[in-house]
Amino acid sequence: MTPPYYAVIFTNNHTAQVEGYNEMAQKMEDLAKLQPGYLGMEHAREEMGITISYWKTKEDIANWKANVDHQMAQKMGREQWYESYRTRICLVERDYQFNKD
Amino acid sequence: MTPPYYAVIFTNNHTAQVEGYNEMAQKMEDLAKLQPGYLGMEHAREEMGITISYWKTKEDIANWKANVDHQMAQKMGREQWYESYRTRICLVERDYQFNKD
Repeated sequence: MTPPYYAVIFTNNHTAQVEGYNEMAQKMEDLAKLQPGYLGMEHAREEMGITISYWKTKEDIANWKANVDHQMAQKMGREQWYESYRTRICLVERDYQFNKD
Repeated sequence: MTPPYYAVIFTNNHTAQVEGYNEMAQKMEDLAKLQPGYLGMEHAREEMGITISYWKTKEDIANWKANVDHQMAQKMGREQWYESYRTRICLVERDYQFNKD
């Protein structure tokens, strides 16, 4: 993963209904891995959920958004699991890291 | 927050040592709010920690990184709290949201 590449920041707040959510999230992560241009995914949840997925190009993101199974998951998300969410499409310009030796 | 603006994605893994971390994280969030160009911050932690801060410009990010108190916190982070981290500087190009009514 060397810049420039894209990050999709998906932040969300859940409804009280959680049934089926974890299974669907796992299924979508497995499916995203098969998409062209997929570079990786990271997530954490406390009060708010944050999922970041990384992609080679904007077109890869558009293709993933349009994926039929993913479309259905998005619809279920809006109907059942999410109180609110926000999606940000971002160009990663610079990237640096630290590893303790 | 209307694009274009900047997001700093900070993902990290902690060492076993957590003493003083939460206090410092809160102190840095309070301090960031006083910086020019600060737009907001979101975070969640499970296995991995994710903190995203939002800024008007790249210069605002550079100024915050160079802040003396923040520099000291970064140094303590590398010495004590972080096993590894990765920082990504991102241009937010597009942004859309959903709110259940």
